[in-house]
Amino acid sequence: MSKIKKVAIVGGTHGNEFSGIYLLRKWQQSTVLDRDSFSVETVFANPKAHNDNKRYVDHDLNRQFNVTDLANNELASYEQSRAKAINQQIGPKGNANVDFIIDLHNTTSNMGPSLILLQSDSFNRQMGAYVKMQMPKAVVVFEDHTPVEHHHFLSSIAPQGVIVEVGPQPQSVIRQDILDWMDEMTKHILDFVHLHNIGELLPLIPSYEAFRYHETLSLPVDEQEQRIGMVHHSVQDNDFKLLRNGDPIFTLFDGTEVHWQGDYEAYPHFINEAAYYDNNLAMSLAKKVLITTHG
Amino acid sequence: MSKIKKVAIVGGTHGNEFSGIYLLRKWQQSTVLDRDSFSVETVFANPKAHNDNKRYVDHDLNRQFNVTDLANNELASYEQSRAKAINQQIGPKGNANVDFIIDLHNTTSNMGPSLILLQSDSFNRQMGAYVKMQMPKAVVVFEDHTPVEHHHFLSSIAPQGVIVEVGPQPQSVIRQDILDWMDEMTKHILDFVHLHNIGELLPLIPSYEAFRYHETLSLPVDEQEQRIGMVHHSVQDNDFKLLRNGDPIFTLFDGTEVHWQGDYEAYPHFINEAAYYDNNLAMSLAKKVLITTHG
Repeated sequence: MSKIKKVAIVGGTHGNEFSGIYLLRKWQQSTVLDRDSFSVETVFANPKAHNDNKRYVDHDLNRQFNVTDLANNELASYEQSRAKAINQQIGPKGNANVDFIIDLHNTTSNMGPSLILLQSDSFNRQMGAYVKMQMPKAVVVFEDHTPVEHHHFLSSIAPQGVIVEVGPQPQSVIRQDILDWMDEMTKHILDFVHLHNIGELLPLIPSYEAFRYHETLSLPVDEQEQRIGMVHHSVQDNDFKLLRNGDPIFTLFDGTEVHWQGDYEAYPHFINEAAYYDNNLAMSLAKKVLITTHG
Repeated sequence: MSKIKKVAIVGGTHGNEFSGIYLLRKWQQSTVLDRDSFSVETVFANPKAHNDNKRYVDHDLNRQFNVTDLANNELASYEQSRAKAINQQIGPKGNANVDFIIDLHNTTSNMGPSLILLQSDSFNRQMGAYVKMQMPKAVVVFEDHTPVEHHHFLSSIAPQGVIVEVGPQPQSVIRQDILDWMDEMTKHILDFVHLHNIGELLPLIPSYEAFRYHETLSLPVDEQEQRIGMVHHSVQDNDFKLLRNGDPIFTLFDGTEVHWQGDYEAYPHFINEAAYYDNNLAMSLAKKVLITTHG
C-alpha cells in the first residue's frame, strides 16, 4: 500500500442517519480532522433526503456506485444524479481523486461501533487491528465477498474505503453515546492512516476476532409478500451473539416459533434494521473469523 | 360513568408506528377483542402514511381533532380529510357513535408500556389502577391539563379515550417485546371496560403512583433554529427517572454541558423521540403524583 494523500469523510449518505451529518458540522468548527500526512475533504452526500427526513428521495444512494450505473446517463433520479456528482467530486471510480473514503452510517440495530471493511488486504487487516486496540468495544466486519470494484457502495469509489456503522439509534435521532462512538472511531481511523503514511504503525496485535458476512435472511411473508412474522425476542438486540442450528429466530403473528436451520455457527447483525422495511430483510448472518494482522 | 357500549381501537394514526398496525391485522384473525358487554370496531387511521412509511403525509393526524378544525372545510390536506372521515365514522366529537377509544402508538423513547389518560375522573383513575395491578410494568401518565373537548388528539372524539404508548421502538420496526406489551395492555383495558360494565370491578388498589404532564423542553438551537446540542447521555433512556435542579440535561456539540434549572422534581419522558425532529423538542417533563383510585 502506498501512502494515502487524500481522504474523504462522507456523512448523510442516508438522510435520516443523523450522527455523521452532525459530526461533519461539528468537525468543520475545529481542526480535529487535520493530520500532517494527508488532506481531508468532507462530503454531505444526500442533503435533499436529510431535508425530507428520509433515508433517500428516489433510490438508496448507497447502492448507486457500480461502474456501469455511474456510466449510464439514463439513470437520472435524484440519488442517481447525486451518485454521478459525488463520483465527479471525489472519484471517478477506477481513477479516483481521493485515496480513501470513510462513509458514516447509523443503524437501528444493536451493532455498537462497527467498522465495515470491504477488503481484507494488509492495509485493512492492520486498520482493524489498530481500531480494536484503541477501542476494544469496536466490532470489525469484513464484507469482502465482492471485489471492491463491483461494490455499489459509495465507499467503493476510492481504492480504499470503509463504512463506520454505529447503532442502535432510531432514524432521525441524535444519541450522544452513538455520536461519541462515531467521533472516536473516525479519529482512530485517521490516526491509523497517518501512522501508516509515516511508517510508524507497529507493534499491532498479531491477530484478532472479527466477523465475515455470509448471508442475508428475510422475514417470513405470505404469497402476497405481506409479513406474517417478526424477529424472535431472543434474537432482538443480540447482534454479534451466537446463533446455532435449532435456535428460535422468528415468531409468527399466530404465535408459532420458527427455528433457524443452518449448518454453521452464525452471528446475526443488522437485526431488525428499520431501513430494510421495504424489502422485508430480517438480518445479516456472519461467521466469526480470526484475522491475522500481518502477512 | 354509564356503560360503555361501543369501543373503537385505532392503529396506524402515525404511519411508521408499526405495533398497532400489525396488532389490528393479527386481532382480525381472532376473537381476542370480543367481550360480552360491548362491541369493538377497529380503525386503520392513516393507511397512506403507512404506505409511504412516514408518520404523516401532510400534517400530523393526531393533532387534527379539535372541534373548530373538524368543522373547517378549508382544512383539506390528506390528514385533515382523514380526520373528518374518522370523525364521521366513530364520532362526531361531542355526540360520538363510540363511547371509548383506544389509540395505539409507539415511541422511540424508553417509556415501556405507558397508558396515557386524558382525564382524571373516577373511570380513568380506576382504569389506571386496574392496568397497574394486572401489568406492574405499566406506567400511567395523566395528560389532563386540557379539557378533553379541547384536545386535538384522535382519542378525544369519544367521551372517553386513552392512548397506549409503547417503546422504545424505532420507527418502521416491529419488535416482539413492544408488540407483546401493547397486545397485553390493550386486553387489560378491554377487560377493565367489561368489568366496569358488569359492575364487578372491586377490589382495586386504593392508590398508585403515576405521572402528570407538566411541560415540554426544547433542544438548544441557534438563531437560525439549527440544533447546537443534544440530550445528555445521562438522561437518554432514563424516561420516568428523577431529574433534579442542576442535573445535566443537554450536551452542546462544542462539549459544553447544560444543567437543568427547575424548582421541582421532574420526571422526563418522550426523551429524544424521533418524531419531534421537526420542532426540536427534547422531552416532556412530568411530576410524580399519587392517584387515589376511589372517591
